[in-house]
Amino acid sequence: MVMLDSLKNLLPQKVSTAPTDLETHGKDESYPVRHPPLAVVFAESLTDIQTTLAWAREHHLPVIPFGAGTSIEGHVIPQGRAISLDVSRMNRVLEVRPQDFMAVVEPGLTRKALNEALKGTGLFFPVDPGADASLGGMAATNASGTTTVRYGGMRHNVLALQVVLANGQVLELGRGVRKTSAGYNLKDLFIGSEGTLGIITRLFLKLHPIPEHIHTLRVFFDDLSDTAQAAYAVMASGMPVARLELVDEVGIRAINHYLGRSYPEKPALFVEFHSSTKEALEAESSMALGLMQETGAISIDTARTQEERTAQWEARHQAYWALVNLFPGKEYLSTDTAVPISRMPDLVEYSSRLLREMGLTGNILGHVGDGNFHTLVVCEPGDPRAEVFSERLVEHTLALGGTCTGEHGVGLRKKKYLSKEHGPALDWMRQIKQLFDPQNLLNPGKIFD
Amino acid sequence: MVMLDSLKNLLPQKVSTAPTDLETHGKDESYPVRHPPLAVVFAESLTDIQTTLAWAREHHLPVIPFGAGTSIEGHVIPQGRAISLDVSRMNRVLEVRPQDFMAVVEPGLTRKALNEALKGTGLFFPVDPGADASLGGMAATNASGTTTVRYGGMRHNVLALQVVLANGQVLELGRGVRKTSAGYNLKDLFIGSEGTLGIITRLFLKLHPIPEHIHTLRVFFDDLSDTAQAAYAVMASGMPVARLELVDEVGIRAINHYLGRSYPEKPALFVEFHSSTKEALEAESSMALGLMQETGAISIDTARTQEERTAQWEARHQAYWALVNLFPGKEYLSTDTAVPISRMPDLVEYSSRLLREMGLTGNILGHVGDGNFHTLVVCEPGDPRAEVFSERLVEHTLALGGTCTGEHGVGLRKKKYLSKEHGPALDWMRQIKQLFDPQNLLNPGKIFD
Ligand SMILES: Cc1cc2nc3c(=O)[nH]c(=O)nc-3n(C[C@H](O)[C@H](O)[C@H](O)COP(=O)(O)OP(=O)(O)OC[C@H]3O[C@@H](n4cnc5c(N)ncnc54)[C@H](O)[C@@H]3O)c2cc1C
Ligand SMILES: Cc1cc2nc3c(=O)[nH]c(=O)nc-3n(C[C@H](O)[C@H](O)[C@H](O)COP(=O)(O)OP(=O)(O)OC[C@H]3O[C@@H](n4cnc5c(N)ncnc54)[C@H](O)[C@@H]3O)c2cc1C
Repeated sequence: MVMLDSLKNLLPQKVSTAPTDLETHGKDESYPVRHPPLAVVFAESLTDIQTTLAWAREHHLPVIPFGAGTSIEGHVIPQGRAISLDVSRMNRVLEVRPQDFMAVVEPGLTRKALNEALKGTGLFFPVDPGADASLGGMAATNASGTTTVRYGGMRHNVLALQVVLANGQVLELGRGVRKTSAGYNLKDLFIGSEGTLGIITRLFLKLHPIPEHIHTLRVFFDDLSDTAQAAYAVMASGMPVARLELVDEVGIRAINHYLGRSYPEKPALFVEFHSSTKEALEAESSMALGLMQETGAISIDTARTQEERTAQWEARHQAYWALVNLFPGKEYLSTDTAVPISRMPDLVEYSSRLLREMGLTGNILGHVGDGNFHTLVVCEPGDPRAEVFSERLVEHTLALGGTCTGEHGVGLRKKKYLSKEHGPALDWMRQIKQLFDPQNLLNPGKIFD
Repeated sequence: MVMLDSLKNLLPQKVSTAPTDLETHGKDESYPVRHPPLAVVFAESLTDIQTTLAWAREHHLPVIPFGAGTSIEGHVIPQGRAISLDVSRMNRVLEVRPQDFMAVVEPGLTRKALNEALKGTGLFFPVDPGADASLGGMAATNASGTTTVRYGGMRHNVLALQVVLANGQVLELGRGVRKTSAGYNLKDLFIGSEGTLGIITRLFLKLHPIPEHIHTLRVFFDDLSDTAQAAYAVMASGMPVARLELVDEVGIRAINHYLGRSYPEKPALFVEFHSSTKEALEAESSMALGLMQETGAISIDTARTQEERTAQWEARHQAYWALVNLFPGKEYLSTDTAVPISRMPDLVEYSSRLLREMGLTGNILGHVGDGNFHTLVVCEPGDPRAEVFSERLVEHTLALGGTCTGEHGVGLRKKKYLSKEHGPALDWMRQIKQLFDPQNLLNPGKIFD
């Protein structure tokens, strides 16, 4: 395409129209529809991003920010002719300030690479979605993970952002301090905006001390509803648990199969405690164990070494891939409902009954300590029941005061629920989009039509 | 005024033009300039607020939301002809859901009244500014307090808001869940917007379990710089401290005088640990004490009973009034700088030197665990040096990567710093104001001109 030549001239070596690049940038990890972009720009600097945007404005062509492409709601898939703006080459750690528990990074850096770079500092960045996502993508989706119950998600752990607007302007949002009341909070408006308001070019992250003492365990139950009740009991006690994840029987079976483990094939809680002293750790974890035993725990495995701990969380993070592996050639839809924690056991129950009633194969797993879990529905490609299941589950969730997406974001798939969830506030979100991006250049068709 | 008669007719018994009401609504707790509103509306419902706004739109008269009037940057003071919209009669607790650690309240309820209402539930609401502020006002200023170092400020503890816009529309922002990624975060845009974007009419608050075990102490030092260093050492250790407040020698003297205490007249840290087990508490607090001793602590007083604990925090919360009492007839300016925690000892040092150099009387106290402290400058009314001091301190703070206001908000007094702190982002804040309030009816002249 002649038009693309001008882009290639502006950004030599950085624009690709190679079929493999177009393919990998026209899909995500789960959404069933694919659509390649016209080209992929591999930006290496703020200037490259501004150049791309200027070109896009001139040619009225949309731009879709792309981090690691691990999102699962269609976030990065073009809705028509568009350029994919891949920031994965902008992956430097710019500064680590251990004395302030802070790091400054580029958006393409992944969470694992960051923690690798932090080795030796005694600090870590806690937010850990199942995939090795980019920190820019994680901020753009307000991602969270297994440690969010203790350390918060992206919103709590991003102190400030640098962003480039559709018009090319560079803004600094927020401040590298623990508190500020200086004017409107634009930082948290951009977190979770899914590439529709601006491109994140730099992040100021909050780091945490690696806990001196860690206690990691797997607690097994006879049935799913006891498992969910036990998780709620731990939360209701106010115990400072660091991780509290549910994996159902199907999930455990898949993990055993995929990773060669031999965990008991029963619904389980994967639990972790973090503490600065040994006494605190022991007191807290034994109290929590007591609660789980009262709620029906039948066996407990403790991870005694760092290797065992890593292996356990590796298993949890691989649960999605383990499932996919167990049912090859199928389509997978992951729900992402979150409810007030006391409602979580109800919703787990409801979801599991609905799977049965609809004759669907599926599995339930996730961040139950935050009232957030995923039901992974496994179907033949094109089976409309997966979407029907998702709709019914979201409807029930909203009736319980919950949200259609606890962490994955809206993308394409959750758009239809936002009006019900937000009422007239949705229209104000649209107006904010219109304000920051009047030409609708940035990731159009996501979050709202 | 004839025009006001129509408002009085619309809201019988709820509109006052009594001189005392006009006076109390034309000032705040510190700002030196006063200006009475034309009238005060004492709203009792959402409908009253909508009625007031409709009338205000028709008469092109600004409306200033008013909670408890304890702000100190001129937030509630009219900049011309305006109506004060007092929500203090909307002070009901609408719902407490202990099983979800959540309460739903009206905006005029004060923090103390809420905690009174929570008695017997085992839960508390942590955010505790020195004054008994309204929860609506606290959300509007993104307030924080002595426990913020552990439990977060308003932004972390407000899950959702109901607001009324200038056009009378009612929006529900956020959701009563621990996590959501469903669209733009308008909730956190309204938190900290100081009554300029909408009126908060309902808050969904996060509650916390009252810790089973509490350890409260006062640690005294020979000089201020050791005190600040010790606070930093505790934070740098990653210890989960629940409160970490600095009070300098002048502050202690003022407290002794005002409340009849006999604390050693030395710079001090007021510290507290919260834990779910006794072992955890002892381990953590003895580690922290060790650190403070290494950094020069000379004596330690432990509060052994609930009464002693309450008395200690009462003293801390009364420190401002104690100072005012020590220097009657003066004018007081409180700064509110916050910096990355490693810079806090520098800034304490700088502030104390600057007071000396400028020959000013003052005192330093505050939330040093969050890198946020106040310098209270005591002057003859009209002495321009207080403002000069504040300007120099803010300039140094911004150079250290800090913020001009950690918790009090912008109001009138901090407006001049925002351009330097935010750069071009400030203009986007203005555009958001323009979007939500095109007639500039809500608290005009605050945050920006
Ligand atoms: C197996 C598996 C497990 C998962 N587990 C979790 C989980 O536990 N928690 C969770 O929250 N999510 C989870 N996810 C979803 C996904 O990992 C997250 O949404 C992640 O944050 C996406 O990051 P990314 O870098 O891959 O972003 P991408 O997929 O590249 O992009 C996601 C969105 O962010 C935008 N974006 C990307 N970079 C930028 C930027 N620099 N500036 C502006 N916008 C940008 C894109 O336009 C897009 O809208 C999981 C996914 C998989 C496949
Ligand atoms: C002795 C003393 C100590 C203090 N200590 C602290 C401290 O530790 N931490 C701290 O953060 N602050 C502190 N403050 C400042 C003050 O208490 C806080 O700013 C508090 O949040 C103000 O609440 P209020 O109800 O008094 O609000 P008001 O003073 O009535 O109003 C403050 C602002 O909020 C707006 N507002 C009020 N109600 C609403 C509503 N319902 N909807 C929309 N806007 C509304 C007003 O228009 C105004 O802009 C202190 C003040 C004093 C006098």
